[in-house]
Amino acid sequence: MPDNAKSLPRVAAAALTEFVAHAYRAAGIPAAEAETAAALMVASDVAGADGHGVFRLPQYIRRIQTGGINTNPEIKIIRRARATALVDGDNGLGSLVVARAVEEAIALARDNGIGWAGTRHGNHAGAAAVYAAMPLQHDMIGLYFAVGNANHLPPWGGTDMLLSTNPLAIAVPALEEPSLILDMATTVAAYGKVKVAAQQGNAMPEGWMIDRQGQPLTDPNRADDGFLLPIGGYKGAAMSLMFGLLAGTLNGAANGEDVVDFNKDDTTPTNTGQAICAIDIKAFAEPSQFKRQVDSFIRQLHGSALLPGFDRIRLPGEDRHARQQERQRDGIPIPASLSVALGRMAGELGIAPLLG
Amino acid sequence: MPDNAKSLPRVAAAALTEFVAHAYRAAGIPAAEAETAAALMVASDVAGADGHGVFRLPQYIRRIQTGGINTNPEIKIIRRARATALVDGDNGLGSLVVARAVEEAIALARDNGIGWAGTRHGNHAGAAAVYAAMPLQHDMIGLYFAVGNANHLPPWGGTDMLLSTNPLAIAVPALEEPSLILDMATTVAAYGKVKVAAQQGNAMPEGWMIDRQGQPLTDPNRADDGFLLPIGGYKGAAMSLMFGLLAGTLNGAANGEDVVDFNKDDTTPTNTGQAICAIDIKAFAEPSQFKRQVDSFIRQLHGSALLPGFDRIRLPGEDRHARQQERQRDGIPIPASLSVALGRMAGELGIAPLLG
Repeated sequence: MPDNAKSLPRVAAAALTEFVAHAYRAAGIPAAEAETAAALMVASDVAGADGHGVFRLPQYIRRIQTGGINTNPEIKIIRRARATALVDGDNGLGSLVVARAVEEAIALARDNGIGWAGTRHGNHAGAAAVYAAMPLQHDMIGLYFAVGNANHLPPWGGTDMLLSTNPLAIAVPALEEPSLILDMATTVAAYGKVKVAAQQGNAMPEGWMIDRQGQPLTDPNRADDGFLLPIGGYKGAAMSLMFGLLAGTLNGAANGEDVVDFNKDDTTPTNTGQAICAIDIKAFAEPSQFKRQVDSFIRQLHGSALLPGFDRIRLPGEDRHARQQERQRDGIPIPASLSVALGRMAGELGIAPLLG
Repeated sequence: MPDNAKSLPRVAAAALTEFVAHAYRAAGIPAAEAETAAALMVASDVAGADGHGVFRLPQYIRRIQTGGINTNPEIKIIRRARATALVDGDNGLGSLVVARAVEEAIALARDNGIGWAGTRHGNHAGAAAVYAAMPLQHDMIGLYFAVGNANHLPPWGGTDMLLSTNPLAIAVPALEEPSLILDMATTVAAYGKVKVAAQQGNAMPEGWMIDRQGQPLTDPNRADDGFLLPIGGYKGAAMSLMFGLLAGTLNGAANGEDVVDFNKDDTTPTNTGQAICAIDIKAFAEPSQFKRQVDSFIRQLHGSALLPGFDRIRLPGEDRHARQQERQRDGIPIPASLSVALGRMAGELGIAPLLG
């Protein structure tokens, strides 16, 4: 979130959800699905994943209107083993397809200790943490892998963009402390951050992208001239590659050169794949005892002495938790550029604008 | 492997395995288990994981002799769900405990599409890739997480070493191409590499470690004055933390301040934890078709144009595969310092030396 967020107009989560649902309905999504998908989208905004929430709505709507997303999909399980499921999303909204997979994984984990569900023929689904966190309320751990919706990096040492920012999310519940939730792109910066920087007119820090000669690239409007850098060099590129196999290839979803750049192409079905794994804590330990141990680990980490230049230890999921509390209370800040884009979209859809 | 490996004396894998088994037997491990554990140790050497194979043997033997490892453990499943198992290693050799867990995970995956087995009361087990790769021959994917055997990094922004290099390994089979195998510490360098650098008298590159003031640390003999750097800054630290929960806390194994530094303490049981997940490919796709798609992906990646300064695209597992072929054929190079350490150990155990 930019530092000037405090001065931005804010919209209550409920109002934003209603606006998104209205837009989805106006674009042809049935009411119940529009409601669910809107809540899933705004969950990204509430959690502070600004590149993954309502920021994406005009693009989703455009894709729906060009026929690039199926408004009436038959989402179904097409292959099963006792503890696994393969979900075919029939090119429906990504959030609905992944939510269905998470539901399956949780049910499978309840019966088997672990459940793994993969998706094919889905679409961009928003922030990974939203889905990885769903098992938490069932005293389960969530692991989530996804194929990104545009290739933004080459294999290590190359220049042909064959890999995406393929994220990993892991959510582990605590008892009194906020849950630990990792949600990371395998690149130094997620591409959503590049888009936000471009929209807000900010330069990118060195280390996010390089150009085809290997030189730093800091102008987000020149993003097409280069590619994102993976974390840890070849390690991040290798993680991206592996997560692409788990979330894409294994499910019969797009990976490598088959990935459709959904920022440039509104019509070709993306065949997006994701994978969600739920682990039932009680298969390994008493959940309350486990969660107490997680609390104790969190407190050990927070108790560490600090390196010069740091004022506190930030654990994964902590900022997200604080952001959720703040945005549930005060609403979601809407930058001017986003407000304009949503206003234009509302006009085209013939629905009431978000900010009256 | 250092560049001078070509000039080093080499030992055939079979001879090295027999030497290791002999040492284990002399230290009190029953013959069959000594054989199995020796083969698992030498598998790290053959694959080029020089910090994880016979390099560790004198330390393991010392630990056995001080009572820090149980030579006659009862390794057993103490908790089960339909697709999960929790293995108690009874403080036996780590390799035997993890191999048992992998065997369980594969059997569970055969029945359920996926199997997950965790360990507690195990010990250091060698290179993660050895175990992640075991499901491959069953047309399964392997995922492996472990808690490292000494805390070498603090939480991000701190200086108290509460996290280890907790590795992730993922193995995915191909058809004609070598399998893709990721095996990475969540730190820029694994601690084994620091130990190898110290043994060989080499300086470390900047970026591996910093001292408590945040300054680069390059003398491996001063490793105690600082800590390893995670990949991608806070992201690597967060992965280490999460993998520690999956492989340690969930299994009732050590994590955080409970981790025993086995480089400094030969007697306290380490209660090491690992986790292995096997995914049966046929739960999602026809295995031969899937493996053909992996081949195709590999060829796409290899076909990428190159960045200035690179001469080829190296994929995860590729160097390992080449090393395996070379070392199976030509034997395993034994640096002088390692030779001295093994000679001293052999003398103390009263067994024949490795290099006559």
